[in-house]
Amino acid sequence: MRKHAITLVICSVLLLQGVPARAQDTVMQVSTIDALVAGVYDGSLTCAGLLQYGDVGIGTFDRLEGEMVVLDGTVYQVKGDGTVHRPGPDMKTPFAAVCRFVADETITLHKGMDYKEVEQKIDASISGTNLFYAIKIMGTFSYMKTRSVPAQSKPYPPLAEVAKSQSIFEMHNIAGTIVGFRCPPYVQGINVPGYHLHFISDDRTQGGHVLDFVFDQGDCHIDRCHRFLMVLPTEEEAFQKVDLSRDRSRELQQIEK
Amino acid sequence: MRKHAITLVICSVLLLQGVPARAQDTVMQVSTIDALVAGVYDGSLTCAGLLQYGDVGIGTFDRLEGEMVVLDGTVYQVKGDGTVHRPGPDMKTPFAAVCRFVADETITLHKGMDYKEVEQKIDASISGTNLFYAIKIMGTFSYMKTRSVPAQSKPYPPLAEVAKSQSIFEMHNIAGTIVGFRCPPYVQGINVPGYHLHFISDDRTQGGHVLDFVFDQGDCHIDRCHRFLMVLPTEEEAFQKVDLSRDRSRELQQIEK
Repeated sequence: MRKHAITLVICSVLLLQGVPARAQDTVMQVSTIDALVAGVYDGSLTCAGLLQYGDVGIGTFDRLEGEMVVLDGTVYQVKGDGTVHRPGPDMKTPFAAVCRFVADETITLHKGMDYKEVEQKIDASISGTNLFYAIKIMGTFSYMKTRSVPAQSKPYPPLAEVAKSQSIFEMHNIAGTIVGFRCPPYVQGINVPGYHLHFISDDRTQGGHVLDFVFDQGDCHIDRCHRFLMVLPTEEEAFQKVDLSRDRSRELQQIEK
Repeated sequence: MRKHAITLVICSVLLLQGVPARAQDTVMQVSTIDALVAGVYDGSLTCAGLLQYGDVGIGTFDRLEGEMVVLDGTVYQVKGDGTVHRPGPDMKTPFAAVCRFVADETITLHKGMDYKEVEQKIDASISGTNLFYAIKIMGTFSYMKTRSVPAQSKPYPPLAEVAKSQSIFEMHNIAGTIVGFRCPPYVQGINVPGYHLHFISDDRTQGGHVLDFVFDQGDCHIDRCHRFLMVLPTEEEAFQKVDLSRDRSRELQQIEK
């Protein structure tokens, strides 16, 4: 009977906590990129809640306080001053995307390749651009350029305004991991079409949203995902009221790179 | 021990079969509307598989063979000749959307209201247009205008071509149920922004994609959904190869109404 009770409890917890079955090959995201671009920065899901859907991913935090890197089930926060923190389980995110990373493919990158060349190499290796691809590049980089942003105060300025005061970080000969996604073109308005990558150093002291890099050596793993789960905020008035019918793709392009 | 075993089996089946926890308030869809508009008509998920995600919904069938209505967990197929069938569990769909319908709200409609006026009434009742809303209107309709399409042969023509040879059905003083969704504007390319409704008569002999109607009396229920799960085809070469970077919204608007 005790075994029965334990099994029942485990199964109930799995089901009630919202752990999706077949979570593998599922990119799960919180809110939409256009809501973030428009200035909806109040978090709607906790980091603990986010980790139920995946162990690898990217995003940002409540009040847009820095860049999120999720790696091996740990959430890292690269703040606007460049310092790296491990936020508590109750810290919320207004926008993030994660997956339970299981590599389908390993792609050979060559020393000296930059961001653009790595994109082209991955594009040439995958079977098409209509699915989602999670990306993990572990290795050393002769150059890494990232950015981060500080926490914002209400009334929140739109993301394009915030980007003007972003901090840029440059690293040389650094060991670490790039994580992120290649999203299909039709996610426009929902997520970032194409590549969106974040970085965290092996010693967990540096990182951010990747602007550019030069690959030195390491492994590039790809997880092809054919399921996409979007969890929208229900309580946040700002999300319910924001105009998501406008085309904000130009604004997004200016911000992303 | 027997109870333990039974519980374990039930939980395992639930998890392995891909029944998503908290399936409630989740709109699940197969493929993307733009893939359908472009002529990707080969089914990728069986009706049995689809019903694991919901009991109410709309869609079409393998080779675009008619309009799908899912009501109370049963799949109905309104063929191009207007006849209504109950396809077997192995029949596949290239595009469909379902949810596990639990009404959050009941909206009072008035005798004589047409499609446009019902849209306006629902829009005025919901808290915003950034979430998904499943819709179920059970009652009698003094007028109902629907359409359906026949199965297509390869090479598949695009949906706009097929629409030219669609069949139109008109019904008067008919009892039945309208089901469908109101999707947020940012799903453009993925699903139909705004309203997309199908109809099935109470005697299950008539139905189709709703083009227009005049409401007589009945109940209008709304299920607000904040989770959206998209399951993309993995095996179908046509889906992997189709150009989903083009804006097909005009083509879609021409087809939808």
